[in-house]
Amino acid sequence: MSDGVTRPEPGQSPAQAHGQRPGRRSSTRLDNYVDRYAARTHGMTASEIRALFSVASRPEVVSLAGGMPNISGLPLDVVGGAIADLVRDHGPTAMQYGSGQGDPLLREQICDVMRLEGIEAHPDDVVVTVGSQQAVDLVTRIFCDPGDVVICEAPSYVGALGVFRAYECDVVHVEMDAHGLVPSVLREAIAAVQASGRRIKFLYTIPNYHNPAGVTLADERRHEVLEICREADVLILEDNPYGLLGFEGEPHRALRADEADGVIYLGSFSKTFAPGFRVGWALAPHAVREKLVLAQESATLCPPSFSQMAISAYLKAHDWQGQVKSFREMYRERRDAMISALEDMMPAATRWNVPDGGFYVWLTLPDGLDAKAMLPRAVTARVAYVPGTAFFADGFGSQSMRLSYCYPTPERIREGVRRLVGVIEEEMELRATFGAGGHPFERGLERGYEAPNTDLN
Amino acid sequence: MSDGVTRPEPGQSPAQAHGQRPGRRSSTRLDNYVDRYAARTHGMTASEIRALFSVASRPEVVSLAGGMPNISGLPLDVVGGAIADLVRDHGPTAMQYGSGQGDPLLREQICDVMRLEGIEAHPDDVVVTVGSQQAVDLVTRIFCDPGDVVICEAPSYVGALGVFRAYECDVVHVEMDAHGLVPSVLREAIAAVQASGRRIKFLYTIPNYHNPAGVTLADERRHEVLEICREADVLILEDNPYGLLGFEGEPHRALRADEADGVIYLGSFSKTFAPGFRVGWALAPHAVREKLVLAQESATLCPPSFSQMAISAYLKAHDWQGQVKSFREMYRERRDAMISALEDMMPAATRWNVPDGGFYVWLTLPDGLDAKAMLPRAVTARVAYVPGTAFFADGFGSQSMRLSYCYPTPERIREGVRRLVGVIEEEMELRATFGAGGHPFERGLERGYEAPNTDLN
Repeated sequence: MSDGVTRPEPGQSPAQAHGQRPGRRSSTRLDNYVDRYAARTHGMTASEIRALFSVASRPEVVSLAGGMPNISGLPLDVVGGAIADLVRDHGPTAMQYGSGQGDPLLREQICDVMRLEGIEAHPDDVVVTVGSQQAVDLVTRIFCDPGDVVICEAPSYVGALGVFRAYECDVVHVEMDAHGLVPSVLREAIAAVQASGRRIKFLYTIPNYHNPAGVTLADERRHEVLEICREADVLILEDNPYGLLGFEGEPHRALRADEADGVIYLGSFSKTFAPGFRVGWALAPHAVREKLVLAQESATLCPPSFSQMAISAYLKAHDWQGQVKSFREMYRERRDAMISALEDMMPAATRWNVPDGGFYVWLTLPDGLDAKAMLPRAVTARVAYVPGTAFFADGFGSQSMRLSYCYPTPERIREGVRRLVGVIEEEMELRATFGAGGHPFERGLERGYEAPNTDLN
Repeated sequence: MSDGVTRPEPGQSPAQAHGQRPGRRSSTRLDNYVDRYAARTHGMTASEIRALFSVASRPEVVSLAGGMPNISGLPLDVVGGAIADLVRDHGPTAMQYGSGQGDPLLREQICDVMRLEGIEAHPDDVVVTVGSQQAVDLVTRIFCDPGDVVICEAPSYVGALGVFRAYECDVVHVEMDAHGLVPSVLREAIAAVQASGRRIKFLYTIPNYHNPAGVTLADERRHEVLEICREADVLILEDNPYGLLGFEGEPHRALRADEADGVIYLGSFSKTFAPGFRVGWALAPHAVREKLVLAQESATLCPPSFSQMAISAYLKAHDWQGQVKSFREMYRERRDAMISALEDMMPAATRWNVPDGGFYVWLTLPDGLDAKAMLPRAVTARVAYVPGTAFFADGFGSQSMRLSYCYPTPERIREGVRRLVGVIEEEMELRATFGAGGHPFERGLERGYEAPNTDLN
């Protein structure tokens, strides 16, 4: 039972042992446990893209890849003060185990947050999770057996696709256009899957400021989507981390606002406050909520009390809606910087959308270009993005990429686009010179499990 | 798709809607989603015991049931100061997404903690988890297919049994005695399972101050257990939340200290510091560690940065080992209070062990008494415990109970034992009067999924 890794001897420091491991990097390729893993584990391999991202995180690279919110605008004095009060006044409770369902006061405040999108809910139907990522995991855990179908937009969130893969679900993608999910295509896809005798467990959808596509489901389509799913008896998993980060007008009305029984709604404080506390939630029909709590207790006993009470204190101590407004303005400025850079510099055959909120632009390359194959050359040119294939369960998306404008400054965004344009133009020239056979230096990047790297969320 | 629960109307507050739900309690018994759940979900039903515990949490009840550490001795000024500094100096990092594997500095500090038990490890082989409960979940997730065998002590930790059930594992229990797991019985059990053609994925063991049995694996048995598992090619999952809470002498040497490749070691800050941050860890062979990180990213993207950095700051700012020493003294005093109360008052035919550390005494009732059937009467008499059946996957344990001394004061412990003795004596009298047919007021408590209620950890 050796994994081939040198272990430190007693009395030898780990650092010494580490220093004496010239073969460590290669030896980790060996996995003597490979015959013992569960079936679900065999698809879990770190993707090649992942290795590139460790390069992409160097400061000289402009990363248009990450989904990290820019939280530099948070008032540290307010946050620090609220947390200091929390420790002083409620320390023993905040540091103790809490309810598996989550802190009751925070669940009330979560209902206030959801009311901004037209949702009237009872705190008893809310389950707090370790980020909304865990909500996707727990919902999938309670609903999906291997082989069950989950319907997703095309493209869809890489972290959710990773969960569906981990539970051995079959993902069926449904086309979007500039107004989000196309109802007629959804109807056909559901009918086709049901006709084939396979079980659809839910439709996973991000209606607002989609990750990665940047589009929003048109208000007039929402009732149609609800109606289609109601008729076909398909649950909806509405994932809405960006709903309050729209650049124009009021927040869109949530699907859950008009359908309580057929929708499980997921929310998060990661983008409206900060992700490091890892607090998200699920709002579910009561019977489902009971299962989610049991699943949460099995997974973690309870979500972190301290994180929950810290967020609760922040929401109380601060004009958090004013803070979200200033986040919106900051992201709109960056969206504008990206769009104007794209308009100024991108070759004519490149297409992209203009998002009304959120973090992302979906860009499609001129015909014949492959975003995944091009990525190593982009990183060499000191710009990074996420290739479109990461957002499909089926290998599609190679001509597209996700560009995020949430984290870099407007100046860096423009510089990143400039570098990216250089890479694309070089690709186009090479293609014109060498023909459709591809890039002469092409190195096949193996497709692996696209782990929901935190840089991709 | 109605679950039978009244929903608030738009414009109506949740509280109003709640007030208008006279049928809510009974209507939640309906579950119109029951045909949609995954196979793993069907075993998840809240146990009847759970309902009793909500009664048991009333202040007039002495709870000898809970596993909550008593953290009232923590220096709130030190914790508050360390966290205030953290927000001021590293707020944007502490509130941001972090590595899926966990904070590098904390992983170094975790290696320092493990060194106290003879473990020499490299931070690169540590994965931070949302409490060690999540480590049990993730290890099971990557190793276990439905029907795989996990070997557990008899009795075993209720939260781990819940995980194994959630992943549809078959649990095979192996007997313990006053010195922990019995090596000869372990050897026979492994041989019998392997002879039957079933796959053993690991041995789950709590070597120190066992939850719930209170016993510790004798040092002289440890090499034998390692040798048996090595020969049979069975991994060991060593769960060690209480290892530093021994009442006498130095910490026991961990199994992992003498076997790096065949042991996955789990640790936690929940009992040595505080559980509300939800920070535990797994130390695993390198190849397994890689899978655990992928599983962690799929489950939560990353463990809470803020919690990790708060613990890291506390470990640095405070004499944390001195704090653990004072925890040990406090728990020893409570252990002594419980043992002397048991010795003074319990009927002669009752048996229990005297733990050398940790939180728990395992008590076996006189023949013919059933701890689970007796629980409602105990709660009526204002004392609570966990019936032994919660700690077996197979319905055994009905004559035993877990008594915890970690949370109540010595005076309350003595009062709790006094009440418990009253209930036991009444049971014995009734049994003497009515014979072996059982209690005249017997109500069968249905066996359900024993969820790892936070009160049970």
